[in-house]
Amino acid sequence: MTIKISIDCMGGDHGPSVTVAAAVSFVNREPDAEFLLVGAEAIIQAELKKNRCLNHPRISIVNATEVVTMDDPIEVALRRKKDSSMRVAVTLVKDGRAQACVSAGNTGALMAVSRYVLKTMPGVDRPAICSILPNQKNQPTYMLDLGANVDCEPLHLHQFAIMGSALVAALENKPKPSIGLLNVGVEDIKGNDVVKKTAELLRADHARGLLNFYGNVEGNDIFKGTTDIVVCDGFVGNVTLKAIEGMGRFVKSTLTDAFRSSPLNMLGALIARGAMKSISATMNPSNYNGGSLLGLRGLVFKSHGGADKYSYEWAIQRAFDAAKNDVLSRISASMALLMPAPEPASPVADDVASINETISQKTA
Amino acid sequence: MTIKISIDCMGGDHGPSVTVAAAVSFVNREPDAEFLLVGAEAIIQAELKKNRCLNHPRISIVNATEVVTMDDPIEVALRRKKDSSMRVAVTLVKDGRAQACVSAGNTGALMAVSRYVLKTMPGVDRPAICSILPNQKNQPTYMLDLGANVDCEPLHLHQFAIMGSALVAALENKPKPSIGLLNVGVEDIKGNDVVKKTAELLRADHARGLLNFYGNVEGNDIFKGTTDIVVCDGFVGNVTLKAIEGMGRFVKSTLTDAFRSSPLNMLGALIARGAMKSISATMNPSNYNGGSLLGLRGLVFKSHGGADKYSYEWAIQRAFDAAKNDVLSRISASMALLMPAPEPASPVADDVASINETISQKTA
Repeated sequence: MTIKISIDCMGGDHGPSVTVAAAVSFVNREPDAEFLLVGAEAIIQAELKKNRCLNHPRISIVNATEVVTMDDPIEVALRRKKDSSMRVAVTLVKDGRAQACVSAGNTGALMAVSRYVLKTMPGVDRPAICSILPNQKNQPTYMLDLGANVDCEPLHLHQFAIMGSALVAALENKPKPSIGLLNVGVEDIKGNDVVKKTAELLRADHARGLLNFYGNVEGNDIFKGTTDIVVCDGFVGNVTLKAIEGMGRFVKSTLTDAFRSSPLNMLGALIARGAMKSISATMNPSNYNGGSLLGLRGLVFKSHGGADKYSYEWAIQRAFDAAKNDVLSRISASMALLMPAPEPASPVADDVASINETISQKTA
Repeated sequence: MTIKISIDCMGGDHGPSVTVAAAVSFVNREPDAEFLLVGAEAIIQAELKKNRCLNHPRISIVNATEVVTMDDPIEVALRRKKDSSMRVAVTLVKDGRAQACVSAGNTGALMAVSRYVLKTMPGVDRPAICSILPNQKNQPTYMLDLGANVDCEPLHLHQFAIMGSALVAALENKPKPSIGLLNVGVEDIKGNDVVKKTAELLRADHARGLLNFYGNVEGNDIFKGTTDIVVCDGFVGNVTLKAIEGMGRFVKSTLTDAFRSSPLNMLGALIARGAMKSISATMNPSNYNGGSLLGLRGLVFKSHGGADKYSYEWAIQRAFDAAKNDVLSRISASMALLMPAPEPASPVADDVASINETISQKTA
């Protein structure tokens, strides 16, 4: 089964030199992958040539004349740059020409454009960003929201849990993945009102056998792998994820400095290079690149802006896996089961409300 | 100048075997330290004997018949166990018999007991917990609040910034330490209403030359050492700190497993043992043990419950340094300068309000 993926080739710090190279590498090792490379045709063509991949049967170019930069305000991405590579790539998903989209562009703009073009799924008030982190059980911990929603109500966290559960069920082949609610302690009395009320909603779903709610988890449970999914609001999730990334860089520089500090230490590192490799594989943040924008009527994946080719391929891999495992209909079915259908709204009203809300949210 | 410190010897997972041993070790290397060891006299006496430290001129025992356990609800610690080692140790500070207190007991109980016994400082609505983390500049990053307040208003975050600034000024000999406000992005428009309004208050203080407000910082700035102080609410702070600790343990187990995985890797680690030692010194969470309970009319320090002797000594060191550098009057002077004085309240009403508020907060 062929999976078509649209790539916002101009997005990210490095643009086509990373995005096109990653797509070429991926298409060469994955016979079921097909790419629609979106952006400035001449530049993409040149990159394909550089990567010795002209006229590949599973790669085509879709021209787009504008680029959403990292500094562009959401309004500019939404209202001015209508032919941006980001918007065109997302529109390919909407039109059914691609099953998933990958972009390394500005997160806030990507969320706003995706929301505007694709719309949210029935039952979803607010889309969320979900990514994975490594844990001591050698399995991924899925965490959401990582920054799309800085203020959340219990209803939103509840929806994040449902969407996360459907995502993990599809990707990890676990029928009922466990859900932890990020809190300052494990006891029910801990935390603020929002998490306490969210816990009530999740306990009710658990009692009905609809979700596998573990209960409250603490920050250290992310790495213990206590639950498959960790749910939190976008403020807490974003701060925590960035603190973890910052600590990762700090650990890496401490290790590098220590092993380079003397010839003897360098020799030790050389002899133990097997160990160094395995540490680097587990700790390498590139292996965890690729956040899903969940809750939209289409699959969109966000790569880190600074991703290199290797890291960007991981984001493509996540998009490919999600499309292959039909994550979209799994989430949609879960939402239909657990959430009441919303009032139908006229498309125009929905559009305007959606843009305004997105802008007012000023996503991270 | 002698600094008298009261030790809640019965608190923590290991009790006197850790707390007494740490006090003995500290008193032997620090001629200006004097200890009041609080708890079951016979047990403390036995531990002193075990540590060959009977009849030390700078160690005395203060008997206390009860112990606040890790599971005791705040109400029990406050209302029932009036002769607990925790409460007696804090009361010694109130009575001026000790200049600081150290406890490894239950955080919520310690905060509630300290608040009840010592009262908050004029101008402080809510005390906060402040600890240090390492950063790439080889300096400490001070972070608060780490879990005393799960719901904060701008006023509270503003007070945390003032208290943190006075603490760092005193301990690090920096007249105007820089303050960062933890957020999901550095731009002023980022974040929720609470952080935006807090930033306004801090910008006003900065404009008046009263505080050195850097602006918003992100999670990764904690380890970059972008600012001396990182201010956040207790929910975000607690989750972030525990995530960091969890990642620390994950990194440690990954390193240990990798270097033990083959004789060659073990040999490499042996040869590079200088590097391994320096990594361990930077990363060892024990070196960062000891959180200050800021905003009280007395110095109280919280050690990790699971601290070993080495780690507990670090908590004692922080208490010693704070008392020696007169942190209390520095914070008090800053609050008087930056915050309007509160309405005077009758002591009894204040007590009851304080207990009830503390209980209703259900600190982390």
